[in-house]
Amino acid sequence: MPDRIFNFSPGPATLPREVLAQAAKDIVNFKDRGIGLIEMSHRGKEFMAVMEETETLLRRLMAIPDNYKVLFLQGGASTQFAMVPMNLLGPGKSAAYLNTGTWSKNAIKEAKLFGKIEVPFSSETTNFNRVPTAGDYSVPAGMEYLYFVSNNTIFGTQFQTFPDYPGTMICDMSSDILSRPVDVGRFGLIFAGAQKNMGPAGVTVVIVRDDLLDRTPEQVPTMFRYKIHADKGSMFNTPPCFAIHVVGLVLKWLDGIGGVPAIEKFNRDKAALLYEAIDAGDFYRGHAEPASRSLMNVTFNLPTPELEAAFVKEAAALGLDGLKGHRSVGGCRASIYNAFPREGVEKLVEFMRQFEKRNG
Amino acid sequence: MPDRIFNFSPGPATLPREVLAQAAKDIVNFKDRGIGLIEMSHRGKEFMAVMEETETLLRRLMAIPDNYKVLFLQGGASTQFAMVPMNLLGPGKSAAYLNTGTWSKNAIKEAKLFGKIEVPFSSETTNFNRVPTAGDYSVPAGMEYLYFVSNNTIFGTQFQTFPDYPGTMICDMSSDILSRPVDVGRFGLIFAGAQKNMGPAGVTVVIVRDDLLDRTPEQVPTMFRYKIHADKGSMFNTPPCFAIHVVGLVLKWLDGIGGVPAIEKFNRDKAALLYEAIDAGDFYRGHAEPASRSLMNVTFNLPTPELEAAFVKEAAALGLDGLKGHRSVGGCRASIYNAFPREGVEKLVEFMRQFEKRNG
Repeated sequence: MPDRIFNFSPGPATLPREVLAQAAKDIVNFKDRGIGLIEMSHRGKEFMAVMEETETLLRRLMAIPDNYKVLFLQGGASTQFAMVPMNLLGPGKSAAYLNTGTWSKNAIKEAKLFGKIEVPFSSETTNFNRVPTAGDYSVPAGMEYLYFVSNNTIFGTQFQTFPDYPGTMICDMSSDILSRPVDVGRFGLIFAGAQKNMGPAGVTVVIVRDDLLDRTPEQVPTMFRYKIHADKGSMFNTPPCFAIHVVGLVLKWLDGIGGVPAIEKFNRDKAALLYEAIDAGDFYRGHAEPASRSLMNVTFNLPTPELEAAFVKEAAALGLDGLKGHRSVGGCRASIYNAFPREGVEKLVEFMRQFEKRNG
Repeated sequence: MPDRIFNFSPGPATLPREVLAQAAKDIVNFKDRGIGLIEMSHRGKEFMAVMEETETLLRRLMAIPDNYKVLFLQGGASTQFAMVPMNLLGPGKSAAYLNTGTWSKNAIKEAKLFGKIEVPFSSETTNFNRVPTAGDYSVPAGMEYLYFVSNNTIFGTQFQTFPDYPGTMICDMSSDILSRPVDVGRFGLIFAGAQKNMGPAGVTVVIVRDDLLDRTPEQVPTMFRYKIHADKGSMFNTPPCFAIHVVGLVLKWLDGIGGVPAIEKFNRDKAALLYEAIDAGDFYRGHAEPASRSLMNVTFNLPTPELEAAFVKEAAALGLDGLKGHRSVGGCRASIYNAFPREGVEKLVEFMRQFEKRNG
């Protein structure tokens, strides 16, 4: 094996080398305090500083307005599928969900436990190969919120522009947060599991507008109430300290390379390289409609399942790892999140050309 | 600062040095695969092996019977306070809780959202300075379960023998799991946050008897259903991979030094040293009644709050860190979990003698 492979995994995903090196050092002895980061009391001043720095950096990088709280929670995006409607719905209340893939379907299932759910758009009949544009649907009146998934990891689609909805929008940005500038003020709540663009699995960031914190029905348990975590600065109970610290390191890395505008340029460039290779002939076929293509997860098929299997295997042998597509789409998927190096995309494109030459 | 301090923190808590060193290595490059542990797909064979090894080791070390599932969940023990009654109670159902401190009180609060709760024992009037023995209470008939906390971190009390209850017992063992042999077969469900005896914050172990998995009311969200996680081997969604891996490393360490019987002997010896120092005169006063004393958290007071503050400060300057007691008890607390070295207890006892000589 090479010293370092190119890791196209959809998440947990590749992280910057310098982040890994710093995290390794901090685990053993944090800031030469004679104690490892994962052994420290979360209420001590060292870890409190980690929390504060991480939140401050995220606020700056995403330009989060002051009337939003930033929470670091456990349980993954899947827990948010339940927490959002637990906090914001209830008997007699309704919400609209755009159904653009597995994760929105799962969110709809949970929401139905807590209110009436409308689905004004679904691309399920075409195997979720696109996201809607403004004219494709209309949101019924009287909704508590409109919910959508900005990037669909499995199908490789992404909203290029967000819905033009005047009410409260709630967005699962798990797989593209921090990959491009977002006007947070247009949203009521944004959440994202860390394990794609922000850090390791084990922490979920929730960005929530103040006025949404007071709507939670009485019977919702303490740990599932946003307000509890907001009031306690995500320290109601012991937070996932290591995961939060690594998020902080990733944010520092992102800040150092120019922040969100710089990474967007970098991401557009990487994705363009790959989509050009797909579009160069008929051997590779993209799954997503061009107008819905994701900059994070590039999904494509080869002429036969046998060729797809051979492609994935040969690529892995060259250190291009994790290219097997999700069973819902088959074929291949190259996840090229923020920290994925351009060099890896170049190597993949070169391999695609060679593979086609040999098998086309 | 010395290369390594003695960390008496109640949790997150001190971990074995070799575990920290291995975790640091694995973060950067796991088994020379050219990829860090926190970047790997949780569905890849490397991480699947980590999960399997960790579960297998825990099963062996605790002699967990085959009719129990082992789950690795997120959200901490505080989430279990809600999940237990969400899964096992419902309208018209009752459960009994022994109230021995902050964590049982918090659990009672959540349980009341889901059923009728009886509290046959409480030591609140004496500031939770003891746990009950068999004659102290009787559990009413018709309970779904009896719930208790085996070790009370804040107050420094611990059940020396478990309740002699013939029905389903549920135990929060967050702060003493793996510190002494436990007959798992006597319990319906055991849970424990990892950050005291098992690893870093961010993962909670749940050990649950098969027959309890099918009682969950329909309206409970997917992520809060034990059966979902049991059926998917804790892989329904992305697990907290790093925290689970470190738990595995801690279990390997524990196995290597002789397992649970060996660590119990080690723990009894450490605690005896400290309690002897407390009992040697009138300067130090233990908070817990002797028959309820914890082997994990040793709580004690000095003659005045001023002396307590000076004690904590001077000890910290000598590398004896984290000795400040919880505000509910005041004074001092020495948390001496499995991985806490005997040398640190010896140093503390020596410091206690010197401090008394100077201030007594």
